[in-house]
Amino acid sequence: MKADHKQVTQALKTARGQLDGILRMVEADRYCVDISNQLLATGALLKKTNKIVLQAHLQSCVKESFETGTDVDQKISEILKLLDKLVN
Amino acid sequence: MKADHKQVTQALKTARGQLDGILRMVEADRYCVDISNQLLATGALLKKTNKIVLQAHLQSCVKESFETGTDVDQKISEILKLLDKLVN
Amino acid sequence: MKADHKQVTQALKTARGQLDGILRMVEADRYCVDISNQLLATGALLKKTNKIVLQAHLQSCVKESFETGTDVDQKISEILKLLDKLVN
Amino acid sequence: MKADHKQVTQALKTARGQLDGILRMVEADRYCVDISNQLLATGALLKKTNKIVLQAHLQSCVKESFETGTDVDQKISEILKLLDKLVN
Repeated sequence: MKADHKQVTQALKTARGQLDGILRMVEADRYCVDISNQLLATGALLKKTNKIVLQAHLQSCVKESFETGTDVDQKISEILKLLDKLVN
Repeated sequence: MKADHKQVTQALKTARGQLDGILRMVEADRYCVDISNQLLATGALLKKTNKIVLQAHLQSCVKESFETGTDVDQKISEILKLLDKLVN
Repeated sequence: MKADHKQVTQALKTARGQLDGILRMVEADRYCVDISNQLLATGALLKKTNKIVLQAHLQSCVKESFETGTDVDQKISEILKLLDKLVN
Repeated sequence: MKADHKQVTQALKTARGQLDGILRMVEADRYCVDISNQLLATGALLKKTNKIVLQAHLQSCVKESFETGTDVDQKISEILKLLDKLVN
């Protein structure tokens, strides 16, 4: 993975900590809306992390592939699959 | 929280396990696109879990509030805030 | 519809004008990315319009239903269906 | 634009027709939820159209750029901006 490992690891550990917090909220029978808000916050953090991963991917793996003309079809195909998941 | 605690706890633990898996993928320097796909999968699981939480909330807390006429304004206000987060 | 008719009509006419613009861009064989950006802008305007419609719905139809205790099940059912469409 | 002009034009005209329908629904003071559903349907059609435009863009403009090594940075930069809009 080309993204900064420390940054991504940090974000993933934060997300894991948030999930632990939500598990405790469920156990403590906290209010639905509070739990829902925490789930939205963790989902947003994962999206942000994914964006960091994909930006680095485009700026290194994809760019390199295109500059050297290797695996162009595979990279395009990967971006197409990704597009299909992101636009819905 | 009104949703089935066992079901929500199970989903959250699965999501946490997936995050642990992604952390290992980062450490092992796995391919960006594979990591991105896992992040999308975990994000989708959190959305599904949030939907379960909110469905139960509407079917119990909100319904009860409306049937008894108590806290109607607060419930409406919560749904409005939620709408604002979901539609963007 | 409970939302301000003038405001919603205005937004819809703007969106329609944007679609006319995109149709002309297609005809003029404009660059893909420019067309895509216009499509995203019109999609965002429709989301904003939908939010206005739904906010007014919650603040009037739903609130009234809950205060009078009429059609509570139907309103809850509608919000559940909506939730299902918005969270995905 | 590299996507099939007939297909995209057809989709855009359908979306425009749907907006005309929604404008009539507003004028006829139809039920909020019915109007909201129509707005969601038109939004979904615009997303689908955008996907068609972007798929063709990747399969032709971007692929060509990468195969010939021209404008690689610009194409990557465009995809990064797009990613930023799609992931949120």
